[in-house]
Amino acid sequence: MGRHILSLLLDDEPGVLARIAGIFSSRGFNIESLCVSGTQSPSVSRAFLVVKGEDWVFDQIVERLGCMINVEGIELLTDVEYFERELLLVKVEVSQKTREEILDLVGIFGANVVDAGYATYTLELTGKCEKLDAFLELLKPFGVKDIARTGIVAMARERKQHRATTQIYTTKLHSL
Amino acid sequence: MGRHILSLLLDDEPGVLARIAGIFSSRGFNIESLCVSGTQSPSVSRAFLVVKGEDWVFDQIVERLGCMINVEGIELLTDVEYFERELLLVKVEVSQKTREEILDLVGIFGANVVDAGYATYTLELTGKCEKLDAFLELLKPFGVKDIARTGIVAMARERKQHRATTQIYTTKLHSL
Repeated sequence: MGRHILSLLLDDEPGVLARIAGIFSSRGFNIESLCVSGTQSPSVSRAFLVVKGEDWVFDQIVERLGCMINVEGIELLTDVEYFERELLLVKVEVSQKTREEILDLVGIFGANVVDAGYATYTLELTGKCEKLDAFLELLKPFGVKDIARTGIVAMARERKQHRATTQIYTTKLHSL
Repeated sequence: MGRHILSLLLDDEPGVLARIAGIFSSRGFNIESLCVSGTQSPSVSRAFLVVKGEDWVFDQIVERLGCMINVEGIELLTDVEYFERELLLVKVEVSQKTREEILDLVGIFGANVVDAGYATYTLELTGKCEKLDAFLELLKPFGVKDIARTGIVAMARERKQHRATTQIYTTKLHSL
């Protein structure tokens, strides 16, 4: 059971995302996190998926995705040297007593206060998944009211090495 | 044609996301951006969707989503005072000549250099969609090699006012 990070370039058409999600769910894969957003080309969007499951089933899914007309590119980020980032918004209860301690944590983690109300602060933090988890854990005792996470986006470092099988699908990937 | 931001709490089961995406695509709605990630409850995930389309069709879709067993909560963020954030990673070409100018832009926008290679820098920026677009526009002349965006996450400000119809679905929303 491995954790896989996939970057897909998809035609920006209704139904494409539903079909992709369907391929994973029909094989019992759960999508742990998913981000879809635009690219520099208005007709193409990019999806990042984090999935967990058997490696051999995953390879089958990637092969199937590679055959889809609306999939313009596939990159398997777990095969290369990469880094990942996620954005977290968290609304935490605040009082005169706890204010300073919360702001100390904001400083330590390099977070930002993006909204300050009478009873709550909303904090923003970016980083690796584990860093966000650690920040949330420390905030829990103060009372966490609301959480919003983007899910993971990832990018290969400058010197990257693809698996031979990956390169088949990545021809168009960097022209966008 | 309005732009709508939806926050959904979903049971973390295979197939749920495919059904949600299917509901939008069957009505010709294109999902502009989508983020799905975990919540504090391991069995529930949260999805943020940005969609564009006719308001009356959108209202029908929300009603349909409200009837789904695996949808635990719906919040329409466009109806309340909210703020939105997105995370951008951008790999830009760099040379001795352009290095300083790029780092100046990093400073002006409050971005970070998260990876520095011989020929490229990878920059990280969070903010509203428009801020990210402006940053990208200014980087284009240097040569943008790769872009990764998370899509939008949003959160209501402390004092929020729901539409009556929204409140029906939000009962469980803040208990997570």
